[in-house]
Amino acid sequence: MKKLGSQRFHIAPGERYHLKHIDPHDDAGIDEKGEAKDLVEELQAKLQSFQQCLYAQGRHALLIVLQGMDTGGKDGTIRHVMGAFDPQGVIVTPFKVPTEEELAHDFLWRIHKAVPRRGMIGIFNRSHYEDVLVVRVRKLAPEEVWRARYEQINQFEKLLSDNGVAVVKLFLHISPEEQAERLRERQTRPDKQWKFNPGDLEDRALWHDFQTAYEDALTLCNTAWAPWYVVPADRKWFRNLAVSRILLDVFEGLELAFPKPVPDIDSYVIPDVPERQG
Amino acid sequence: MKKLGSQRFHIAPGERYHLKHIDPHDDAGIDEKGEAKDLVEELQAKLQSFQQCLYAQGRHALLIVLQGMDTGGKDGTIRHVMGAFDPQGVIVTPFKVPTEEELAHDFLWRIHKAVPRRGMIGIFNRSHYEDVLVVRVRKLAPEEVWRARYEQINQFEKLLSDNGVAVVKLFLHISPEEQAERLRERQTRPDKQWKFNPGDLEDRALWHDFQTAYEDALTLCNTAWAPWYVVPADRKWFRNLAVSRILLDVFEGLELAFPKPVPDIDSYVIPDVPERQG
Repeated sequence: MKKLGSQRFHIAPGERYHLKHIDPHDDAGIDEKGEAKDLVEELQAKLQSFQQCLYAQGRHALLIVLQGMDTGGKDGTIRHVMGAFDPQGVIVTPFKVPTEEELAHDFLWRIHKAVPRRGMIGIFNRSHYEDVLVVRVRKLAPEEVWRARYEQINQFEKLLSDNGVAVVKLFLHISPEEQAERLRERQTRPDKQWKFNPGDLEDRALWHDFQTAYEDALTLCNTAWAPWYVVPADRKWFRNLAVSRILLDVFEGLELAFPKPVPDIDSYVIPDVPERQG
Repeated sequence: MKKLGSQRFHIAPGERYHLKHIDPHDDAGIDEKGEAKDLVEELQAKLQSFQQCLYAQGRHALLIVLQGMDTGGKDGTIRHVMGAFDPQGVIVTPFKVPTEEELAHDFLWRIHKAVPRRGMIGIFNRSHYEDVLVVRVRKLAPEEVWRARYEQINQFEKLLSDNGVAVVKLFLHISPEEQAERLRERQTRPDKQWKFNPGDLEDRALWHDFQTAYEDALTLCNTAWAPWYVVPADRKWFRNLAVSRILLDVFEGLELAFPKPVPDIDSYVIPDVPERQG
């Protein structure tokens, strides 16, 4: 377990993330068929009890931001890792192309509305980071607009953090070869074809522009209060393991405990229910 | 499997539900340690593929209304049965005491806002039925107000059904003895004490009034487009099995299929990504 601390996927604020020096195929020397299975079960059981406490206590919220290239595994991570949580304590918000109403507001308006309440885990499938990623790469806003956003994002995330929302940001890091394989799968498998979107091919052609935009976002918004983690995601089983491990570390950093019961809880008498008449 | 059709838990619209004739301890003669485990796994796997289709197709929504006395197992059903679904396709809404804003609207206003969009499964933990249950038993509104609601509810649910929302309503039916045991557990187990609410004891003292109110709601709102099911819930494993079976039957009644892929999907060429410069 030691070799899979969450610090493996994180660098200190101020340092620069260089994606080409991070291997998307990394498995930390863990054996998929051996220890990995036990690890996942152990981690999931712990995550479940932490979530129960988070929910019962209602003092903190956890906000998980998921970003990555198309086919990076955002949906799969939600299904396999976050699927372990009690659905009642989880709210997933996918951010798509903004609506007319959303565009009529500042870019953080729709994000703020979706922040989880205390006790809850919120999962953002894409997020406000699209406003410094696709918006930058596809030139949907002038540079002075998207450049100002890194600091706006940092201040917004600070507000959340100061108010009981633990923010954890995960970049699912895949290689172009792995993406090609997954796109081909979507192209050919009948149960996956509905996910095939020709627009993804255009984004793929802009691969390096996206990587540069990601490196800036990861570097400029890697704060003490809302850290970025780069998760090697070519191997799905390892991605799931790494994300579980990171989430567990975040939970451990919160001070979670069951709330105090009502005073004199022992003194209450549970009344009998008489036989029903008629 | 045959002996556990969902019709076991349902009567025809127009007939009267008599709760005292339905055994909360029923297990349909199924062996918990034997066939039950295989059944649950089989059902869950099927529910998962149906959900995937529902989500991909985006033509229907599924709305699951959960009602029951305190400790009836609403939370547990969500965790154990609905926990099998992909969290991205599920949205759970708990309805508590209405806020000031909610009370300033008609009783279905907050309910309508929470109706799941097409492709999604919405789970209501309590619902608009509280407005003919606790509101009636505790006399929070005059009789002419709550009496008019059965028909208002039927018309509202018809609107949903006519617009692609499959509505399924589950009453988790427990015995007063089982409730006493579960309340005692909340009173004594450190990890459950936070759920102990003295107000639940007052509701327990009104047990028969609630049962009568439930019988009316179950009977008057048991429509062809939004049927009620009474789920024996003293045995948690059987409750989970029964709910899974009912949901599966609902899914089977929808015409789910993966949507057609984009035209000429085979013709798209996945572009190469050149080596990164610098």
